Amino acid sequence: MYKHSYASRIQNHTNPAARLLLEIMERKQSNLAVSVDVTKAQDFLAIIDAVGPYVCMIKTHVDVIEDFEPSLVRTLQALSAKYDFCIFEDRKFADIGNTVALQYASGVYKIAEWSHLTNAHPVPGPSVVTGLKSVGLQRGRGLLLLAEMSTAGALTTGSYTEDAVKMARANRDFVVGFIAQRRMESVGASKTDDTTGEDFLILTPGVGLDVKGDGMGQQYRTPREVVVGAGCDVIIVGRGVYGTDYSLTAKIAGQAKRYQDEGWKAYLERLTA
Amino acid sequence: MYKHSYASRIQNHTNPAARLLLEIMERKQSNLAVSVDVTKAQDFLAIIDAVGPYVCMIKTHVDVIEDFEPSLVRTLQALSAKYDFCIFEDRKFADIGNTVALQYASGVYKIAEWSHLTNAHPVPGPSVVTGLKSVGLQRGRGLLLLAEMSTAGALTTGSYTEDAVKMARANRDFVVGFIAQRRMESVGASKTDDTTGEDFLILTPGVGLDVKGDGMGQQYRTPREVVVGAGCDVIIVGRGVYGTDYSLTAKIAGQAKRYQDEGWKAYLERLTA
Repeated sequence: MYKHSYASRIQNHTNPAARLLLEIMERKQSNLAVSVDVTKAQDFLAIIDAVGPYVCMIKTHVDVIEDFEPSLVRTLQALSAKYDFCIFEDRKFADIGNTVALQYASGVYKIAEWSHLTNAHPVPGPSVVTGLKSVGLQRGRGLLLLAEMSTAGALTTGSYTEDAVKMARANRDFVVGFIAQRRMESVGASKTDDTTGEDFLILTPGVGLDVKGDGMGQQYRTPREVVVGAGCDVIIVGRGVYGTDYSLTAKIAGQAKRYQDEGWKAYLERLTA
Repeated sequence: MYKHSYASRIQNHTNPAARLLLEIMERKQSNLAVSVDVTKAQDFLAIIDAVGPYVCMIKTHVDVIEDFEPSLVRTLQALSAKYDFCIFEDRKFADIGNTVALQYASGVYKIAEWSHLTNAHPVPGPSVVTGLKSVGLQRGRGLLLLAEMSTAGALTTGSYTEDAVKMARANRDFVVGFIAQRRMESVGASKTDDTTGEDFLILTPGVGLDVKGDGMGQQYRTPREVVVGAGCDVIIVGRGVYGTDYSLTAKIAGQAKRYQDEGWKAYLERLTA
């Protein structure tokens, strides 16, 4: 059982985004991230305004918002400050170093300017980390690598996962953890690697209390399975919190509170088990 | 040696985007795709206008263009019609089915509305194909899977590549080929799979005549190595064609002609070897 508290782990991280996330989790008593995957800016902001008090993090896909404007990012940043949550643009960068550096810094979205954390697939090899780090490190941003996925038939298994952890281990100042289904400390380590005190943040999608799948390959586990059973740090929940009618903000807030409580209860159970 | 001509292979494909690409290759005598990775719309259009006569395809990363406007897409489509080339948005989709469907159809870019071909990493498992197909098939679009990458340390090896080909084989109406470094017919086939007449388009990045790498993990081969040696169909060239001064349009056109000639010469050598 993984027994380290969020508070005690702050000292294990030099990356400002990782430290901020752990600090927020501790002071808000929340390990809940809400994934806001809607296509209208108004719905996007309404959901964030409803769930803000209960989350340590908002996960975004800005590239699905049809009426995106740069001002939306400023509003998101204001909500981040008001409610005290990290922003995680779930971009899943997966190109060569030169291209991901442009995609991260440039374009319409300029993700590096506003997203505390983003993520990348390790599949292109170490250059994907090098490219993103060349943009993000100086801005105090952090990167998560996709070591595992929660979809049926995902190819993130065996040596693929081990190689992801090796890439992270070689870039501890920038790669702060993983999208994964279990803890990753010591995974893929060689006999000469000193993994004492190794500490990766584990963010876990595919969490739900009421359903088991989305009909498009996504598979769900409960907060307790993820936090107690698998030792993960942050539970990522989407539709389970906000459903399909985004005008029901009181109901959405209630669901966020419910997931926050379930996630934190599971964390306390793990600490005291 | 892979001896089938582009013209003879049209009949092997039902997908409209695959057929269009093969038709263009044959009538323009070009297997050259130019990858236009610049951050200003003016440069983007100037390069395409210069290389248009020599290419079968323009490969885009629209999300690196800082002053993107929907009108840019309409101009790109007009150039596609004027010069007779396919558009391939190199998006490298790599998320769960529900998310990639939104990213493909929605957002600022609405890629499915204008890009004949796009691509995806197989890493999330079959749902990434299902999600994209639910949007693209009805629009006559085609998908390429990233079976291999040209970067140092890429994880696209062994069973990963085989699983990519299996996903394509299960979706022949929509998955028309691969980003890869070699031919993929019969790869990963089981004894019960009938791979007679299997025909995948192979598009190959990392092609250059003058340099060997970009300092960020990208590795280059010559058109002859790629087309004759490895049997690939389309060579993808970026900086090798347009360099760093985008105002030198005559020089850029000259380089595109040079790569077109080298690529087609290699193709004829393969056919007659």
